[in-house]
Amino acid sequence: MSRERLYLFDTTLRDGAQTQGVGFSLHDKRIIAQMLDELGVDYIEGGYPGANPADSEFFSERPKFSHAKFVAFGMVRRSGRSVSNDPGLAAVLAAKTDAFCLVAKASAYQVRVALETTNEENLAAIRDSISAAVAKSGTAMLDCEHFFDGYKEDPAFALACAKAAYESGARWVVLCDTNGGTLPHEVEAIVGEVTKHIPGSHLGIHAHDDTGQGVANSLAAVRAGVRQIQGTLNGLGERCGNANLCSLIPTLKLKKPFCDTLEINVTDAKLATLTQVSRALDEILNRAPNKHAPYVGESAFVTKTGIHASAVLKDPHTYEHIVPELVGNHRQVLVSDQAGRSNVLAALERAGIAFDKSDPKVTRLVEEMKEREAGGYSYESAEASFELLARRTLGHVPDYFRVLQFDVNVEQRTNGQGRPNTVALAVVKVDVAGEVLISAAEGNGPVNALDVALRKDIGKYQSYIDGLKLVDYRVRILNGGTEAVTRVLVESEDENGARWTTIGVSSNVIDASFQALMDSLTYKLVKAGAPA
Amino acid sequence: MSRERLYLFDTTLRDGAQTQGVGFSLHDKRIIAQMLDELGVDYIEGGYPGANPADSEFFSERPKFSHAKFVAFGMVRRSGRSVSNDPGLAAVLAAKTDAFCLVAKASAYQVRVALETTNEENLAAIRDSISAAVAKSGTAMLDCEHFFDGYKEDPAFALACAKAAYESGARWVVLCDTNGGTLPHEVEAIVGEVTKHIPGSHLGIHAHDDTGQGVANSLAAVRAGVRQIQGTLNGLGERCGNANLCSLIPTLKLKKPFCDTLEINVTDAKLATLTQVSRALDEILNRAPNKHAPYVGESAFVTKTGIHASAVLKDPHTYEHIVPELVGNHRQVLVSDQAGRSNVLAALERAGIAFDKSDPKVTRLVEEMKEREAGGYSYESAEASFELLARRTLGHVPDYFRVLQFDVNVEQRTNGQGRPNTVALAVVKVDVAGEVLISAAEGNGPVNALDVALRKDIGKYQSYIDGLKLVDYRVRILNGGTEAVTRVLVESEDENGARWTTIGVSSNVIDASFQALMDSLTYKLVKAGAPA
Repeated sequence: MSRERLYLFDTTLRDGAQTQGVGFSLHDKRIIAQMLDELGVDYIEGGYPGANPADSEFFSERPKFSHAKFVAFGMVRRSGRSVSNDPGLAAVLAAKTDAFCLVAKASAYQVRVALETTNEENLAAIRDSISAAVAKSGTAMLDCEHFFDGYKEDPAFALACAKAAYESGARWVVLCDTNGGTLPHEVEAIVGEVTKHIPGSHLGIHAHDDTGQGVANSLAAVRAGVRQIQGTLNGLGERCGNANLCSLIPTLKLKKPFCDTLEINVTDAKLATLTQVSRALDEILNRAPNKHAPYVGESAFVTKTGIHASAVLKDPHTYEHIVPELVGNHRQVLVSDQAGRSNVLAALERAGIAFDKSDPKVTRLVEEMKEREAGGYSYESAEASFELLARRTLGHVPDYFRVLQFDVNVEQRTNGQGRPNTVALAVVKVDVAGEVLISAAEGNGPVNALDVALRKDIGKYQSYIDGLKLVDYRVRILNGGTEAVTRVLVESEDENGARWTTIGVSSNVIDASFQALMDSLTYKLVKAGAPA
Repeated sequence: MSRERLYLFDTTLRDGAQTQGVGFSLHDKRIIAQMLDELGVDYIEGGYPGANPADSEFFSERPKFSHAKFVAFGMVRRSGRSVSNDPGLAAVLAAKTDAFCLVAKASAYQVRVALETTNEENLAAIRDSISAAVAKSGTAMLDCEHFFDGYKEDPAFALACAKAAYESGARWVVLCDTNGGTLPHEVEAIVGEVTKHIPGSHLGIHAHDDTGQGVANSLAAVRAGVRQIQGTLNGLGERCGNANLCSLIPTLKLKKPFCDTLEINVTDAKLATLTQVSRALDEILNRAPNKHAPYVGESAFVTKTGIHASAVLKDPHTYEHIVPELVGNHRQVLVSDQAGRSNVLAALERAGIAFDKSDPKVTRLVEEMKEREAGGYSYESAEASFELLARRTLGHVPDYFRVLQFDVNVEQRTNGQGRPNTVALAVVKVDVAGEVLISAAEGNGPVNALDVALRKDIGKYQSYIDGLKLVDYRVRILNGGTEAVTRVLVESEDENGARWTTIGVSSNVIDASFQALMDSLTYKLVKAGAPA
């Protein structure tokens, strides 16, 4: 049976930016857009050019995607204006993009109360704006805002809005459950009606999670014929979030009837990176991952019950609805973690470290990692620290330098003009191959001061680390409050542009930071093959 | 139209106890059970008597409930044993309870692989055990484990298991999607078949959230005729959790067709306590609430977009699918760089700060916020800092104290046993109403040391801040690397359990942290009405 194509439209960078407590820098958007393209989504909605400086900058140049189409979001022209006379729309249409996704009301109530205009003017705005967008880029879409509420109150008008876009050349007409209150059986029924007027091949669904049914609503719409789903990674989005692509993608790939009748552009190999993509996004945003997230959550395949555990060990199929590795996750039986070992072996292979499966040191490494992870370490993001730990446990890492002592002081006092002034000063004493070196440095903070002091003079190894710089620094308090443990991730970059991440954990943030900094230096020396 | 009764069965204390990282003490169970009874659920599954001491103790005496029935969970008799010869089942049947809920396999595959017995023996175990439970208490239920997977593979056997229980006198036969991988349309179809053999009035649904559709599966089953829903508060449960009663209850009470055709025992007044019940459970378990939870989440009715905000202020119905107060929640219009004047005005109202729309100071405040946000501040999450900024800009905040100087030192040296030891020591000099106070403190890090030192002695205001504690601390480096700006968010809690978040921004993390700490103290003093 030939499968129909189902398109994935990601709005993490636009609708996802509405999440409370989330903001994307331009740099963040670029990284995330690349991640999305690699994963295989078809459309990447980058933002709203003209609405804020970062988005305008993002759309000043079309990114290089291997597959995805870049999409600029915006509103249709305002009532009473023309396309050429609406600066907001003009800014959108000027964007360097592959496609436009414009939003318009599809509810008579909204047109009356929120826009305070007429139905006819609303329809004209849709036609004018979509036509202009089609003329500009060839690919235009209309987000029919409040479509389902609008359809329930005035089906003729809601449909008229959708048709106005379709007849003006829109490639996609997206039905939006803007307030998130529609139920799946309603979505299925309403979409069924719409497909009598507009083919499903040109229809999309944009659902939210306000009743906990964003995924179900999206799938209901697909069952009724739509062929584009809009959603976000990790279900980011305003209020309760958008439909979660990390729940939808595996369901579409692995569950009947979807896997048999529909095809999405996410390959099996890319599906296996989903867990890592989900965690990477949380890392970028410094958000605690949702451990209980479907498919990709840390607990998604964890069995705690003794009864379940023995069944799972006999045959994982007894208690798992899918094989965890298909989405890059793994099972964990908290009684005994058999999966841990295979994960570690896979990580060793990825790091290019030779090992013998039967070597007792491999078992020691697995145990060491479990202990450390129980104490707050997380090697998922800190591959350089993992590699050092592995090399130390399985073999040998030279003792390039030893820190004998450090001291960092941060002082704030009022300066001559009565303004507070803060200075940080660090002193580090290291033993490099028997030679004791003492360095001091100032910095814009205690960690920066320590970092600069540490790298100021490491004797014979100085040339190896000269090009090194700290490019990102993330702190997370685990277990919150006073019994807290601090986890620090440091990302470093060398003169060749190579980047790596190291980790440190301690109840003291300076300690944790210092561990991560030392690992970073050592890693560079190991990679550069510096002689012991 | 007369409505049919729909029963709510809460398994927070049994299935919810399987949540990774969650454990209920006997005291916890008693409190939560009372909360559940007050809310109006019909059945409270308290645990598994005999499986662990706390549960056995919990069932040593029937709790006094105003409405709910107390339910003891257990397994049907093991294959090869009789009811009187199975100590596990004996312990369950000895419980002081109103009803029993026994679990049995309803899948031929499970019977063969997990139990390693025959279909006939499985059916016999169901009949014997349910009969015994009915004889004991009058009310028995069977949880048909793996029912949907079982039905797909061998519908006759799955149905036979369900019927065996029904014909043995079970009040309820509960169809369980144990692995959580069934989809709503499958649930609806399968339940439709089952109701041809067992009336919906005696059928229940027990769904999990492994594809993000626990709520949708439960409602699909209800639409197909079941009249009992099993779930947990806050969607607690193994892996991705059970069907979330905090999402189901409002949907059943407020959404068609459920609100028209079905009646649950949760009154409108009790519905309005739902948010508080949800938060109380998280407090008891010391879990961070899910801010994005449907209906009850802190962000569930939060609007960030400027366009949305002005519409919401015209008529909240434009962007809300229900009135937040119906579930005890409230709307919030956030201030952020995407927002404009209308968001700031709404935030001022939220904070209870009086203002005159035409006051030029309001304009000054909007500008001040945009400048600060461009520099790294984000007031979305830091409502307490927003309030202080607003009060300072629009009027006056007393200068409770002035920090003249601080000094924090972090030192690592090798101790007597040759192990590195890190200590942090802070000194703070404050002017409190003309009195200069100097305090010093140690801490597990520089920020902790400063925090303790700052709060150690603020003279006449000491009693106001005695119950204060730091419960969360988040650091984010913006713009990465060396031109970085550090943003620190501090969440504080006082003796009344009130929580608030403050922010600090600086290139120096200690500076940024200190700003956030000072705002937190000042906020507490302002809120407590401390005299200037």
